[in-house]
Amino acid sequence: MAGKKAAFQGERGAFSEVAAQELVGRTVRPVPCESFEILFEAVKSGRADVGVLPIENSLIGTILNNLELLHESDLTIIGESQLRVVHCLITLPDLRLRNITKVYSHPAALNQCRNFFRKHPRLESVPYYDTAGAVKMLTESHTGCEAAIASPYAARIYGMKLLKESIEDEKCNYTRFLLLGRKSIKFKGQAKTSIVFSLRNEPGILFKALSVFALRDINLIRIESRPSRRKAWEYYFYIDFAGSAKESKVRHALDHLAEITHFIKVLGSYPKSVNGS
Amino acid sequence: MAGKKAAFQGERGAFSEVAAQELVGRTVRPVPCESFEILFEAVKSGRADVGVLPIENSLIGTILNNLELLHESDLTIIGESQLRVVHCLITLPDLRLRNITKVYSHPAALNQCRNFFRKHPRLESVPYYDTAGAVKMLTESHTGCEAAIASPYAARIYGMKLLKESIEDEKCNYTRFLLLGRKSIKFKGQAKTSIVFSLRNEPGILFKALSVFALRDINLIRIESRPSRRKAWEYYFYIDFAGSAKESKVRHALDHLAEITHFIKVLGSYPKSVNGS
Repeated sequence: MAGKKAAFQGERGAFSEVAAQELVGRTVRPVPCESFEILFEAVKSGRADVGVLPIENSLIGTILNNLELLHESDLTIIGESQLRVVHCLITLPDLRLRNITKVYSHPAALNQCRNFFRKHPRLESVPYYDTAGAVKMLTESHTGCEAAIASPYAARIYGMKLLKESIEDEKCNYTRFLLLGRKSIKFKGQAKTSIVFSLRNEPGILFKALSVFALRDINLIRIESRPSRRKAWEYYFYIDFAGSAKESKVRHALDHLAEITHFIKVLGSYPKSVNGS
Repeated sequence: MAGKKAAFQGERGAFSEVAAQELVGRTVRPVPCESFEILFEAVKSGRADVGVLPIENSLIGTILNNLELLHESDLTIIGESQLRVVHCLITLPDLRLRNITKVYSHPAALNQCRNFFRKHPRLESVPYYDTAGAVKMLTESHTGCEAAIASPYAARIYGMKLLKESIEDEKCNYTRFLLLGRKSIKFKGQAKTSIVFSLRNEPGILFKALSVFALRDINLIRIESRPSRRKAWEYYFYIDFAGSAKESKVRHALDHLAEITHFIKVLGSYPKSVNGS
């Protein structure tokens, strides 16, 4: 994967770029994208080799819109990684805390550092588009009183100083990222498979659908349902389970599931992350 | 429910206040709260009669943190409502579009109106804490070049003008709100029940758990799983199903479920919303 071009949503230094390094390696060539739609297009068109997509967060839950973009795309999942969200106070290299009066970041990040602001009531929190973008903005600032909240990686990318590390209130804040490619890959070790299928809203139908896994001792890792936006009373189920779609028992289970539902799509079989759930 | 005090997160005019009107009626007395934690505390302490909690959105998915706050609280669900998210361009009463240069709102709202900004490249989008807060800020502004993006209700609350209605890109954007109380209520008509339970990560265990509903023809409406933050390899399942915990077949199902899992909690039985999924 060395030297691969990885598309991600956000500015250089975004948390997704840290995930790209984790998933592709330090030699990854970053392809920042303005939106998730552009990320998918970048991988599809070949402008990037792979895409890095945040899919769930331990505080906010599944990022449903990204799951749907994946479901509607031709890309396949080829890897996953789970990263802890760390927020740091970042400034120009020669500043100290007493110089700072304004702290810029995305409202969600500011909100996740409320204890820090309570301890330093003199600091004004100022909403900004994104965390890494706020650090980038510091490089153009010359007032000498501004700081940003972002990842340590954003500080490194823009040559800024880490004034305070890990100022987030909740240390148990993880984001799971998926690595997306145009084709599935070969790999060894424990596999995980993600699928989506639809069911009519009938009593017991989900039970029947899950029986295809239970009858073959296939372990479900995650399950999520959502109503279809297109058809009333139709539901989509997103399921992650242990095993690869290349194993015969998984193939049998998926064939069996196809008897119960009229729509089923394999989103990918990929190596299970050691730090994943 | 008339004249009840309803706690919600956000400024006066927040989208949650619109949901409070929908759920409690026009005579509702709003109790704005700085955070969701404060909302729960306000209802628990009696400072508010009920609470209005956004729990899932059709674009972003379940608001897991709110589901967890509910799971850890003593409050119970007594109602639900689903509202379409509408973003409007709001200004001081005497302004026109050609006067405007800056548009303030929460980054998520700005991001949901990208087509509008593409059509009006002269307008600068400026991140703000929340949508209703941006409208409130207009009331204190005298520059005559500022607008905000928020709900029509926020415009009414602050006596501002709706310059453009429904400028959001995605019209299919709904948020489901729960109405929370200290005690369950009596009601007639179709019921819905929300529960949470935990399971060890064993093959087939979810299948066994769901059998308690399938065997009794109880219709599942929603299912979601998440790893426990406290115990490795333990999962929480949040399930909504048709019926009330007071019906005997539901009571039997829950007793049966208690045989399979060591933790189960009923989050509430409440009237099924006519516009709900």
